[in-house]
Amino acid sequence: MTTIAIVGLGLMGASLAKAVRPHYDHIIGVTRHEETGRKAVARGIVDVAAMNYEMGLPAADIVVLAAPVRIIISQLQTAHHYFKDGAVITDLGSTKREIVAAMNALPNQFGAVGSHPMCGKEISGIDAADEALYRNKTWVICPTLRTTPAAHEAITQLAQNAGANTLEVDAARHDAIAAMVSHLPYSVAAALTSAADGFSQSEPLTWNVAASGFRDTTRVAAGDVTMMLDILLTNADKTLAAIRDFQFNLDQFAAMLERKDEPGLRAFMDMAARTRRELNK
Amino acid sequence: MTTIAIVGLGLMGASLAKAVRPHYDHIIGVTRHEETGRKAVARGIVDVAAMNYEMGLPAADIVVLAAPVRIIISQLQTAHHYFKDGAVITDLGSTKREIVAAMNALPNQFGAVGSHPMCGKEISGIDAADEALYRNKTWVICPTLRTTPAAHEAITQLAQNAGANTLEVDAARHDAIAAMVSHLPYSVAAALTSAADGFSQSEPLTWNVAASGFRDTTRVAAGDVTMMLDILLTNADKTLAAIRDFQFNLDQFAAMLERKDEPGLRAFMDMAARTRRELNK
Repeated sequence: MTTIAIVGLGLMGASLAKAVRPHYDHIIGVTRHEETGRKAVARGIVDVAAMNYEMGLPAADIVVLAAPVRIIISQLQTAHHYFKDGAVITDLGSTKREIVAAMNALPNQFGAVGSHPMCGKEISGIDAADEALYRNKTWVICPTLRTTPAAHEAITQLAQNAGANTLEVDAARHDAIAAMVSHLPYSVAAALTSAADGFSQSEPLTWNVAASGFRDTTRVAAGDVTMMLDILLTNADKTLAAIRDFQFNLDQFAAMLERKDEPGLRAFMDMAARTRRELNK
Repeated sequence: MTTIAIVGLGLMGASLAKAVRPHYDHIIGVTRHEETGRKAVARGIVDVAAMNYEMGLPAADIVVLAAPVRIIISQLQTAHHYFKDGAVITDLGSTKREIVAAMNALPNQFGAVGSHPMCGKEISGIDAADEALYRNKTWVICPTLRTTPAAHEAITQLAQNAGANTLEVDAARHDAIAAMVSHLPYSVAAALTSAADGFSQSEPLTWNVAASGFRDTTRVAAGDVTMMLDILLTNADKTLAAIRDFQFNLDQFAAMLERKDEPGLRAFMDMAARTRRELNK
């Protein structure tokens, strides 16, 4: 009999609970929000909801921390007093170096593996929970000093039960890649929205003209700010490196546009179009 | 009896033909590509296809130029020899100053109005034609020196027949807004794709980790390069101004991240999230 506790029933935690419920004997949701706990049980997302670690964690064989990154780190430092001996811990945080460091510092009666499933939505909360969220998505697994074979197996199985495909990457490498393909796109989307917002102050027709291209390019800027702030602050060095890399590319592009270098622009744009179209395949 | 000729049967031209066909007596498609002309007639997109201006334009009361911007400009300079006296001309180009200038230079027996329907897809060609493309979208109308009341009425009616809502804006103002909400997002998407492509040369797992956030932010970089190149080269000044504006915002964001200015970042991100969420309403 395997009992799993999911700490945090926002979009990611509640979607995971829905996706894996058929695979475990008992799913405990842990949330400080009474309203969320009531909904989670009423909707059959979890079997039972507990309002704090003391009441929710001692029975769990697997504990999934599904909160903003800096909260996960503090949970690893404090909530472990309530973990059952031999429990396997993972998380769903989007940056991994600081989380893996906190997992490394866990008492050695626990198993621990960092997780980052590459999925999400720009809406948050239990009402957006979707059992298909993880399906066919990449679930990055980061080994820690507490990654016993049993812990590795339990979390690999959890990811597969959610319908995801695991990819093992160490934390530093994960954070550099995530900075480029996720934290940089967020930063760019936020800066683009901010630039257009400033422009719209003196041009009232701005939003009448903005169409699907603008909406798609900026979609991620509508995401959960608290979650994103934790991500950026725990991956600032790699995100800044990615921003500099991007700025270099945009500067090159702008310089070619400035001197109307048509062959140069076409080569740059053709390469970008080919690369981007590959992702649709 | 009103006959309309659409010059260019790519995504925009063929979609317009499909959308408005019930509203006109006769729709002529003009395309140099025999295969496209055959398809357009076989699929009922147009009544008849002509392979050049001489054969297609003399019967048309309304001529819609649906090509990349610099081709539209050259069509206005040369194809007008084949326009019927009193014909009303419009175009579907994404920048308007140079096109309106070319319309202003038309012989004064023609009526002319610049058009820019704010819609599109990242795929091109007649096979992507979609009669719903224009529905409920904004169709910008730019007045020219050749905008007679009859021309204004004919093109307003054309837009409405396609299901779009017209918005009258002069060409310079249009180009500044379009630079901010469309040509800048494209430039950013292309530079982001280019940065990630460079990064992936030394990190083979890059594309395994890239998820929907990266795909949405870069979607427009997959668009038609020839069309986009014409847009950028006929709106370079406004696009460069928008790029500088964006870079200023991104620099501010990066500086706050560098010094871990959490309240500053949160304010910036909150404002971007609020602005972006407004667009979903």
